[in-house]
Amino acid sequence: MQRDQPGAQQSDSEATFLSQTLSNRGVKISTFYYSNFQDYEAYQGDRYHTVLNSLLCQNDMNYIEEPLLQYPDWRGHPFLRAEVAKFLSYYCGSPIRLNLRNVVLLNSCCAVFSALAMVLCDPEDAVLVPTPFHSGFLFSAQMYTQVELIPVHVGSEITNTNTQPFELMIGKLEQALLEAKTKNKKVKGLLLANPQNPLGEVNMKESLKEYLKFAKRNELHVIIDETYMLSVFDETIIFHSVLSLESLPDPNRTHVIWGSKDFGITGFRFGILYTHNDDVVSAMTPFGYLHSVSGITQYKLRRLLGDRDWINRVYLPINHSRLQEAYGYVIKRLHELEEQFGFKITFRSIGCGLYIWINLKRLLEPCTFEEELVLHRRFLDHKLILSRGKSYMFKEPGWFRLMFAEHSQRLREAMDRFGQAIEEQKQYWIQKMLEDEVTS
Amino acid sequence: MQRDQPGAQQSDSEATFLSQTLSNRGVKISTFYYSNFQDYEAYQGDRYHTVLNSLLCQNDMNYIEEPLLQYPDWRGHPFLRAEVAKFLSYYCGSPIRLNLRNVVLLNSCCAVFSALAMVLCDPEDAVLVPTPFHSGFLFSAQMYTQVELIPVHVGSEITNTNTQPFELMIGKLEQALLEAKTKNKKVKGLLLANPQNPLGEVNMKESLKEYLKFAKRNELHVIIDETYMLSVFDETIIFHSVLSLESLPDPNRTHVIWGSKDFGITGFRFGILYTHNDDVVSAMTPFGYLHSVSGITQYKLRRLLGDRDWINRVYLPINHSRLQEAYGYVIKRLHELEEQFGFKITFRSIGCGLYIWINLKRLLEPCTFEEELVLHRRFLDHKLILSRGKSYMFKEPGWFRLMFAEHSQRLREAMDRFGQAIEEQKQYWIQKMLEDEVTS
Repeated sequence: MQRDQPGAQQSDSEATFLSQTLSNRGVKISTFYYSNFQDYEAYQGDRYHTVLNSLLCQNDMNYIEEPLLQYPDWRGHPFLRAEVAKFLSYYCGSPIRLNLRNVVLLNSCCAVFSALAMVLCDPEDAVLVPTPFHSGFLFSAQMYTQVELIPVHVGSEITNTNTQPFELMIGKLEQALLEAKTKNKKVKGLLLANPQNPLGEVNMKESLKEYLKFAKRNELHVIIDETYMLSVFDETIIFHSVLSLESLPDPNRTHVIWGSKDFGITGFRFGILYTHNDDVVSAMTPFGYLHSVSGITQYKLRRLLGDRDWINRVYLPINHSRLQEAYGYVIKRLHELEEQFGFKITFRSIGCGLYIWINLKRLLEPCTFEEELVLHRRFLDHKLILSRGKSYMFKEPGWFRLMFAEHSQRLREAMDRFGQAIEEQKQYWIQKMLEDEVTS
Repeated sequence: MQRDQPGAQQSDSEATFLSQTLSNRGVKISTFYYSNFQDYEAYQGDRYHTVLNSLLCQNDMNYIEEPLLQYPDWRGHPFLRAEVAKFLSYYCGSPIRLNLRNVVLLNSCCAVFSALAMVLCDPEDAVLVPTPFHSGFLFSAQMYTQVELIPVHVGSEITNTNTQPFELMIGKLEQALLEAKTKNKKVKGLLLANPQNPLGEVNMKESLKEYLKFAKRNELHVIIDETYMLSVFDETIIFHSVLSLESLPDPNRTHVIWGSKDFGITGFRFGILYTHNDDVVSAMTPFGYLHSVSGITQYKLRRLLGDRDWINRVYLPINHSRLQEAYGYVIKRLHELEEQFGFKITFRSIGCGLYIWINLKRLLEPCTFEEELVLHRRFLDHKLILSRGKSYMFKEPGWFRLMFAEHSQRLREAMDRFGQAIEEQKQYWIQKMLEDEVTS
């Protein structure tokens, strides 16, 4: 099982700690980090890299030339930005040829988001975020930017504002914006992810346009994270990049982020911004001073992104078929567990991303975030890492993100343990119910 | 000629620009960056890397293993931190064996300083900085941290507070601290560089201890940048790392930074913090999320730092003899220019670092920062980059940092051009003097 949160490699028994030497904000950032991520250990297992290694270990990959060892262009070496522009033009299906001058490369998608939030928002400005939303950006916003993320809760239930579960309706955005304005908050942007993480859904083209039009009407920037765009493994699903649209409602306020996840190389530490706004590129540039990528890594990345033949003929087919297989296996095991335990584990996933969003609230008694944490810890006792809903700012307790991008043997072992954890939790749940009856 | 400022790779004709889309702080950071660094172009020349290349291009350097491609330990891979601890123990002459748990690796010294300023200082807190001080940290402080740097001016003249030029007397620090307190500023730390940049001096052991004691008396953190510790090329000069001291007055408030400059590999993008303070290590850890180094670069770095035999027998002797030669050549040329033009170019350098701090105020009429900029631009017209005093927060106009770490042929060409620029400036100066006489 895997996660996209920072891994805490030390055990701080105290979530909140006082220090005689740290600043208040130092303590605040630390406390947030360790209270949210202290349970995670560095994920050191392998995934599908035997495929990648064959490319990355070629002899001519070990190339060093002088400029790679010197200060880089702070937006990324031009040779790499040119390759990125070509790569995005092709894989995003852009109607125009994308330009290297609109590309900024920093050392992670979160660093891109952090710098972007700095140059688009002033302290205490706000950004709307449909939740659940992946925790990396949420955490990044807390470190440097002082930008408030206003969650727009997208619920699992069908209500009068939601005709479908987890559907982000424009009405919800309008309402959230209105409420924020009533509280005198300056809302500067809307943060989206497509494919969504943790929901594993892609936006319909029409919805995407609606979000962009809503943003334009309200003069909001749209920051759209397309990190998993190449991890749509079900061929019947069509992913529409925002860069594929014939025309953008507000090109100067539309900013796309993409990074290392589609190649499973988070250790490369890179993230890419594509924006048509020259001022934004210009203002992002100084941030390369604090967030740039080593020249030798930039060189390898160019080689990787530039080998389209290898990506199309070797990497993507293998990666997608493995993801499909792992996904199918996990779905099957979840169905078996439902039969075994006699309750429905509602799960969301339509065949993209590396994860399934599952609902285990039937195992919580009472259904609270405290009990969600108990279940999370139970998974950890079984050496399973499942990110819990709370870290995605989701308001309904009991949801978890289950990563399935794993070798079949490890996945079988993981699902066995998952079953054991569920079994234990069920016993715990029965015990709690009995106690409740006794005391009531 | 070289520089350690960020290189602006685009020409923004407007130093101050307005934007409909950027935040106020976005505009502020951009304006500061482009107004200070817009003249700099990426330095793409080579230096001494034929030496390094032989090591970095060895076949087994192209090593990829799974953990290098995955999320790292946010403080840096343990294998690298262990190597760094060994490296610093040896080269800093530490009386105790330094420990990997006190090491934090981020993607530049400036990133280390930025994160450190975050966890030690709250917004509007202040840090004392003896100036001239190299511009990288000064710039970093302006981006995210909101920490005020209070310059403690160390002048070129002998006065009743300074018995020697450029000497940082404790009295000056006491006075600066008192003045800051009078203005209700919360001073949290003292920033030092040893070897100093741009002065090219090393601290005497006794002075170093005095600074540390001053800091302890006043409960200030000491952040000491030892970036150029291995670039002391004059063998008669002894460098004392703060880590070499038998005992530190306040170990919990003493933090050492070291980085890529000693190996001339700024393109590697790494910076290292060594601190005895566990709370600081702990609070710095989350910042790895935004400032970490790619795994493959960390691997290469371990190989480089771990090859002590190569460093001692090959790299350092060659590097030092080349620096010595280049330094001697530049000093000779400066003396010749003094004779030719009949005025003293006071210069500071005692045989360490890659630069000489030179005084050209005799060529400014009037002696202002505006005229300093004119001379700076004149150098640029000759394709010479000399950082000017103002970017080091130096209060006396007319000082420049001249980098000499260059191949002999390029250095000869550069000094020829330098002479031409001085000649032109002299003509300009005479013209100005004549105009002054006419108008007065």
